[in-house]
Amino acid sequence: MRNLDEQTVTQAVLDLLAGTPDPRLKFILTSLITHLHDFARDVKLTEAELRAGISFLTQTGQKCDDKRQEFILLSDVLGLSMLTVAMNNRKPRGCTESTVFGPFHVEGAPEYANGADIANGAIGEPCLVRGTVKDLHGAPIAGAELEVWQADATGNYDVQYPNLETHQGRGVLRSQADGSFEFRTVVAVAYPIPADGPVGDLLRATARHPWRPAHLHFMIKAKNYQTLVTHVFRNGDQYLDSDAVFGVRQTLVADWVKQPEGGYTLNYDFVLNPVG
Amino acid sequence: MRNLDEQTVTQAVLDLLAGTPDPRLKFILTSLITHLHDFARDVKLTEAELRAGISFLTQTGQKCDDKRQEFILLSDVLGLSMLTVAMNNRKPRGCTESTVFGPFHVEGAPEYANGADIANGAIGEPCLVRGTVKDLHGAPIAGAELEVWQADATGNYDVQYPNLETHQGRGVLRSQADGSFEFRTVVAVAYPIPADGPVGDLLRATARHPWRPAHLHFMIKAKNYQTLVTHVFRNGDQYLDSDAVFGVRQTLVADWVKQPEGGYTLNYDFVLNPVG
Repeated sequence: MRNLDEQTVTQAVLDLLAGTPDPRLKFILTSLITHLHDFARDVKLTEAELRAGISFLTQTGQKCDDKRQEFILLSDVLGLSMLTVAMNNRKPRGCTESTVFGPFHVEGAPEYANGADIANGAIGEPCLVRGTVKDLHGAPIAGAELEVWQADATGNYDVQYPNLETHQGRGVLRSQADGSFEFRTVVAVAYPIPADGPVGDLLRATARHPWRPAHLHFMIKAKNYQTLVTHVFRNGDQYLDSDAVFGVRQTLVADWVKQPEGGYTLNYDFVLNPVG
Repeated sequence: MRNLDEQTVTQAVLDLLAGTPDPRLKFILTSLITHLHDFARDVKLTEAELRAGISFLTQTGQKCDDKRQEFILLSDVLGLSMLTVAMNNRKPRGCTESTVFGPFHVEGAPEYANGADIANGAIGEPCLVRGTVKDLHGAPIAGAELEVWQADATGNYDVQYPNLETHQGRGVLRSQADGSFEFRTVVAVAYPIPADGPVGDLLRATARHPWRPAHLHFMIKAKNYQTLVTHVFRNGDQYLDSDAVFGVRQTLVADWVKQPEGGYTLNYDFVLNPVG
């Protein structure tokens, strides 16, 4: 293993995977190293470019903290997240489609009773959200756990406010015996993903806009069903066809209906896919 | 750009590069995104595996500070650094070969007069290093800047000691009018690369050893010549054929000669490649 050149080094690295106990890890690393080396050769990566890439990844890691996940954001804007979601969530027709998880989920969202106001002081026009959690045959799923998170009218999630000590626009509730759920919140708006880090630099360098169409995040868990991670998007949003993270499915687009007495309502039903 | 699937998402991401002003960046990102998506499809990456990868990269970034560069180490153990060095340093026969930069170079190494002791208190057996900086025709190159850095007898670089306030085994000196240089230091030993971070986890998960054969780092700069980043390796080292970062070239292996009066000597001449 001396005098390796730009061709022979690849096999030398792969050969060292021979002793990897976990066959799945060995398989993944074999593909990763092969593609990584092919990429470097394909573009004839310079030493300065490798340094720039290392600096970019370092800054991306250092931008992360308990409220900010810049590597998820990077995966999202490179389409890797949506690709992975699409590969792993093939479902029977009729099931609610999945989309990206995003970087703004945090552990510890507060629990609410059905019907509660999860806005909890978030800025925005009031909105009543209602729906049912069902199976593929239309039967209600009782006791499903619905976790919701969303940006406020300024386009910020609660975790983006450095001094906010409570959760806003974020909560966990459960479907009722008839599968229904209901909560009050504020109207979701389109927002730019955070552009003050390396991912923002990347978007600017590629002249891409940072906007996501208005949406509510849902993660729905129920026994004997696959966990559903998805959004409901707002019909009419100007960014539905240019979502910065490639997440829009037509079946996830719904109407926010303005009410004569003020505020909005949104009705959306979720259909879960059974396990196995 | 709605309803993208695991195949169509790739072209959608590539299409957004259309407005990238820098053609080289566009070219690199096109290849990177293509390989990244192909990798994810080839291995059918799961959502849990993507999360694990994001967590690994996040930890790698967060392990970096002004004295530790875990992403360089990652690039090194994946062979990407050596591949890039090999691609970018094709030289006429007779020039000193290049090898990896490594993660232990820092700015601000102290300057020394020719003949000085750069160990500056580093632990180890004394060693006198001598040589000449020359061109391809054997003519001396005067005034070349030689930066040297190395581990001590315990296998640690100065920057790995958290409370060390001075530099040890690290310094900058200049070749004399006849191209010669000379300095005192300690004998280099084989050492394991730092294994207390994500790169160490990766090596353990793949049952790879972390050892590098004993070496001195050199970076040599001279006007009208390409900067040379290289090592001199110690002949007889048990890791010359299994360097954890794939950096050994036979032409860079030299004898550390034990002296009857104690200590060692190393003689090594460097041949620089002219610019252009």
